[in-house]
Amino acid sequence: MYDPTKPYKKSVLSLIQETWDTPYLSVQKGLYSTFQRKFSHPEIDHIDGIGTKGLYHWQAKTFKEAVQDALAMNLNDLALARATPYKLQNHLVVPGEDKELIVQILQHLANECKRRNIAITGGETSGGEVSPKEEHPLLGLTITLSGFIPKQKQNLFQPGDILFGMKSSGLHSNGFAKVRELFGETVRDEFTIPTRIYDEAIRALDNVVDIHGMMHITGGAFTKLKDVGEEVDIILKQGEELAPQKIFTEIYQKGVPDTEMYQTFNCGIGFVFSISDKETHKIPKDIRVFPLGIVQQGQGKVIITSAFSGKEVVL
Amino acid sequence: MYDPTKPYKKSVLSLIQETWDTPYLSVQKGLYSTFQRKFSHPEIDHIDGIGTKGLYHWQAKTFKEAVQDALAMNLNDLALARATPYKLQNHLVVPGEDKELIVQILQHLANECKRRNIAITGGETSGGEVSPKEEHPLLGLTITLSGFIPKQKQNLFQPGDILFGMKSSGLHSNGFAKVRELFGETVRDEFTIPTRIYDEAIRALDNVVDIHGMMHITGGAFTKLKDVGEEVDIILKQGEELAPQKIFTEIYQKGVPDTEMYQTFNCGIGFVFSISDKETHKIPKDIRVFPLGIVQQGQGKVIITSAFSGKEVVL
Repeated sequence: MYDPTKPYKKSVLSLIQETWDTPYLSVQKGLYSTFQRKFSHPEIDHIDGIGTKGLYHWQAKTFKEAVQDALAMNLNDLALARATPYKLQNHLVVPGEDKELIVQILQHLANECKRRNIAITGGETSGGEVSPKEEHPLLGLTITLSGFIPKQKQNLFQPGDILFGMKSSGLHSNGFAKVRELFGETVRDEFTIPTRIYDEAIRALDNVVDIHGMMHITGGAFTKLKDVGEEVDIILKQGEELAPQKIFTEIYQKGVPDTEMYQTFNCGIGFVFSISDKETHKIPKDIRVFPLGIVQQGQGKVIITSAFSGKEVVL
Repeated sequence: MYDPTKPYKKSVLSLIQETWDTPYLSVQKGLYSTFQRKFSHPEIDHIDGIGTKGLYHWQAKTFKEAVQDALAMNLNDLALARATPYKLQNHLVVPGEDKELIVQILQHLANECKRRNIAITGGETSGGEVSPKEEHPLLGLTITLSGFIPKQKQNLFQPGDILFGMKSSGLHSNGFAKVRELFGETVRDEFTIPTRIYDEAIRALDNVVDIHGMMHITGGAFTKLKDVGEEVDIILKQGEELAPQKIFTEIYQKGVPDTEMYQTFNCGIGFVFSISDKETHKIPKDIRVFPLGIVQQGQGKVIITSAFSGKEVVL
């Protein structure tokens, strides 16, 4: 809830109220907004934030990008459950007591939410708790997103499946502890490019092909593929269209081994999914997905031909 | 969701699964837990965290207390809506990569949740993103709590009401920016005493008396009382039982003016509620609440006889 002594309280409340007109919820305005949902599907909640990347967003003043990162980290994971997002709560921590900045960030968030029929049912803003004069002031943005699942379905790679990848926009929001270790105090443009959001594309795709397994490549990177494979091996090789961006090559050249690269970074691929080889022709031309590999019977290994060295990496 | 490369993933999942057996939800186990609720009441969500107090909890290693703080900040606010808490998501940021500590903190949280019939539907743990060697390493713990409201009722002070206060345990989780400003790098025992949790007492009380208005005294402290008063003045004077703890007197003696004290700190009172003067005899003896003042027709002022100077403070 918003501290009434704070000058931005009214602006923030009016921004979040703009998001309450959705097909999925009846929101009742009051001291605290209460709500009743208009569906009875099973649901899923998901919490995630921008973490260490908030150091760079604060330095670079890339606030719109920070909002996209926090949303992406939740929307892309909700996509794995085939969930339709419908409400969220935000927790924003801004160094210093900058009313205009808080309202600006909430405005970005409200715009994104309105567009997606996501009601902001509340949130907390802590301005002034952290001083901008700290050694490493950090913009904190954590979102709890809720979705409902119109049709529940397994998320599991099948032997014989063809794997496809979707291009990332670069580092996305993971591996920044490593980035800091390697680059020290340097702030690069590549560090604040926002995470791509895949959920709409994935839901559209899921309407025309039968997605068997899928994974958002975030913390843990390609090891996450094991979570949606049982008794299979996953064999990956990046083609030209999914080649790692320059920043990944640079990180690799600083001495990070192949295995650690693929355990830590998306290396150019933000989302992976599999379909039966009989369905590959059904993928609409306007959805930019690229062949990435195959699924075969096995023991749960992820085997990648490293785009950096050409060597085989086994996770 | 939990990073599969992290060694603590299994322990964390098994801890949160222990909380899924509640009267309010059917939780379906899977890669992501989905759930269906067993009620159709209106609902409320609430997000809050331990903020700057996480600096002190980290220094003092008071992790159980940190969990109680994060829960209290949410439970006490949900009490204002007469909501029954039933699920939460946690976001834990631990400096360094300390598996045992992460599991230990999640164990505290799971214990508290089981006791209260709150299902942990998921969460995120970022170990290793912040280095413990930072100048000011911070334990981060944010919780999004959901509650349902069996019976909706206004929360509003009425002219003629008698105000009661419930004792705080000390600083609770607000005003720590000021505490840091005044005490610098010093860590005192009083800085990590956990916030008292009032929600069960308030719900029990609400069954026997008709609570008109109520407020959790957190960020903004006594100015928050204005949020539940329309065209009334709120007149407060702390008796002996609600006297400020020594730490508040000490802060005052460092030169914080009376008005700022009551705008920033709970000054010994963590929760305030009002009932009709005809009902005061109904308050059960075992609920420790103490007369604090009156509500009268007015213009929305909060008028406090400062326990520090005896002077009148108008908020």
